Amino acid sequence: MRDTISLALNVFADFMPDLLPDQHRADYVFLANISPDLQRHVLDQVASPKVVAADTMNHWIANDRAALVRLLPRIDILTLNDEEARMLSGEHNLVKAGHAIIKMGPDTVLVKRGEYGVLQFSKDAMFAVPAYPLEEVIDPTGAGDTFAGAFMGYIARKGVINESVLRTAVVYGCVMGSFVVEQFSVNRIASLTWEDIELRYRAFIELTDSHHSRWTSQ
Amino acid sequence: MRDTISLALNVFADFMPDLLPDQHRADYVFLANISPDLQRHVLDQVASPKVVAADTMNHWIANDRAALVRLLPRIDILTLNDEEARMLSGEHNLVKAGHAIIKMGPDTVLVKRGEYGVLQFSKDAMFAVPAYPLEEVIDPTGAGDTFAGAFMGYIARKGVINESVLRTAVVYGCVMGSFVVEQFSVNRIASLTWEDIELRYRAFIELTDSHHSRWTSQ
Repeated sequence: MRDTISLALNVFADFMPDLLPDQHRADYVFLANISPDLQRHVLDQVASPKVVAADTMNHWIANDRAALVRLLPRIDILTLNDEEARMLSGEHNLVKAGHAIIKMGPDTVLVKRGEYGVLQFSKDAMFAVPAYPLEEVIDPTGAGDTFAGAFMGYIARKGVINESVLRTAVVYGCVMGSFVVEQFSVNRIASLTWEDIELRYRAFIELTDSHHSRWTSQ
Repeated sequence: MRDTISLALNVFADFMPDLLPDQHRADYVFLANISPDLQRHVLDQVASPKVVAADTMNHWIANDRAALVRLLPRIDILTLNDEEARMLSGEHNLVKAGHAIIKMGPDTVLVKRGEYGVLQFSKDAMFAVPAYPLEEVIDPTGAGDTFAGAFMGYIARKGVINESVLRTAVVYGCVMGSFVVEQFSVNRIASLTWEDIELRYRAFIELTDSHHSRWTSQ
């Protein structure tokens, strides 16, 4: 597996993404999971981004840590999974890990826990959501990237970051992630309507409604 | 391990709990995790319980399934972990497992997922809560029983079961479970004040507040 990853990386060793002119003026930048030096190379081309998010993984934390650590102060929002949060921070406890990573640069850290949901850490608040429990999961491929796309899309639509926007963005990320795993490839996403999305968003809010504003009237 | 469990069970083979007269009139009954026949023996002694909850485990599902299945129609609320929900229902998917167990008798099924929280299934609703993320976990022993005690205590205080009461009871269960693991034995619980409990309850509500009633004003 390690050999396969190394091979794949060597194949792309000359990959050096150059943005199109329009993209130099992007307000919202999501640096998907690739070498931290390439993430920096992309970010350097954006004149004045309002929000920068980045994804990373165990491979870069283990093998390109210095470049990743240099990048972190330029990142507003970092996404990674629980094991990666532990690796990056050196803290086994996730609460300590989240706060340690915030000290490395990002204002917000999203710890993705697959079927168990997402933990969001910021300096003054924690937010925890479960994944939407599905009756059938066909293929989990792409759930993380779909989450990130919906999350960034919501933030871009609001045009501002605060705790409320971040929380709603996480929920829309979970909602869209819950759709993509219901079929192979992008088939489920391609057939979605806005109504499908809003219905599941509302179902998600009911699922997690622990102070039961809806239920108290019963 | 299996031998150890069998030995422990043989030692208690003659154990036949008889309730005290006051307990025969109990309104709220929680049948902790023991043989389903002993759970039934206890329940038979209670004249007219308003709410009956029960815990069970893999051992009884595998080795005493018939007795457990006979007991389930007399149970309002069943608690078990995710693997046990799969074993009991024969469904790998937890949503299907929850609904299959409801068809076996209980109105409500609480699937305990340790550090990942609790999934509550009832006929018309699902509720998901994370565990409260702690900076330090000293000893997880007793978290499940503390959860159950707080859960039943809240229901008994309200004197009625509906979705709102169940959800709040689950949250108080998680809150109390989060305290007990912070120290060995009952040391943390023994030193708690009502204010400690209410503060963490409010922290828990903020942690899970995905429709951000508190945050929208920011």
